[in-house]
Amino acid sequence: MARWEGGSRERLGDAAMRLFVAQGFEQTTVAEIAAEAGLTERTFFRYFADKAEVLFADQESFDALFLAGLEGADGGSPMELVAAALGGATVFFDDDRRPWSRRRQTVIDSNAALQERELHKIAAVASALTAALVKRGIDPTSAALAAQAGLNVFRLTFAAWIKRGEKRSFAEIQTGVLARLQSLLG
Amino acid sequence: MARWEGGSRERLGDAAMRLFVAQGFEQTTVAEIAAEAGLTERTFFRYFADKAEVLFADQESFDALFLAGLEGADGGSPMELVAAALGGATVFFDDDRRPWSRRRQTVIDSNAALQERELHKIAAVASALTAALVKRGIDPTSAALAAQAGLNVFRLTFAAWIKRGEKRSFAEIQTGVLARLQSLLG
Repeated sequence: MARWEGGSRERLGDAAMRLFVAQGFEQTTVAEIAAEAGLTERTFFRYFADKAEVLFADQESFDALFLAGLEGADGGSPMELVAAALGGATVFFDDDRRPWSRRRQTVIDSNAALQERELHKIAAVASALTAALVKRGIDPTSAALAAQAGLNVFRLTFAAWIKRGEKRSFAEIQTGVLARLQSLLG
Repeated sequence: MARWEGGSRERLGDAAMRLFVAQGFEQTTVAEIAAEAGLTERTFFRYFADKAEVLFADQESFDALFLAGLEGADGGSPMELVAAALGGATVFFDDDRRPWSRRRQTVIDSNAALQERELHKIAAVASALTAALVKRGIDPTSAALAAQAGLNVFRLTFAAWIKRGEKRSFAEIQTGVLARLQSLLG
């Protein structure tokens, strides 16, 4: 299942994920990852600061996706703006990524420090989104509530999307969860 | 400002908080807390498993408050039920508690491990509330969204309530934040 045609970065990422899933995140060393990828440790450190970065490096642009979605929106209610932000994130979660996302989540779920980092990442997106909404003239309380509700929609969507056997696209699931949110106060 | 008329438990709690604020949570030992309270370490450990318990012991019943509020509700939409749960929590945050809550938050904000424990505590309430809503026949997605929105209302309310100079009651602030949430999707 290795994608050897990929560059070193992708080979290292695939090798790391295989080892994390097979033997556990804590038990895996950078030396093993490099060997599994047929590369040197030196090459590993050219791409990643440490082994956890394999799981999080792709996600550096994570809040940029939400903000890009928001930027594309012309205006509207806070929840319409948040829906636009969520739409921006769907680009990232295409079907090719689903197997990787599933394995990644298995690794994260097995390690408290990784879980914490994941939570902080999502909290950082909520903060960035809140700030962007405030910049558009929305009061801070409504902005925070809307942004947090949006991230909750995202988390529930993601959890459903990576379920075994789930075939619907990220966008399709997210539309359904958003509709639930919109009907909550209806 | 000590409340010496209180029992040993309260004396220990007050002493611990004075030391946490004055010299930092990490720097404070149980021996110092006991000495500050004029009691023995042995007595401290009769009431608290460790120094962090001083900050969290009161809160053991924290999710019970939300669930009690929910139990008092006869029915209604998911958000009406969550509003009832939030009403249950206001009992805990009376004005006598505000100075303690302010100091407690200062201590929590200064320590990453305490912050994490606080986040987990709130996440646990959201889970318990979600489960209680599902038991009432609400679909799991709507239940999770409503419970999480409720806890976001709680967190924003709490943050406003402990602001320096804030005079409004917890219940009054919370009513305003809830109204913001309800108008978000209006």
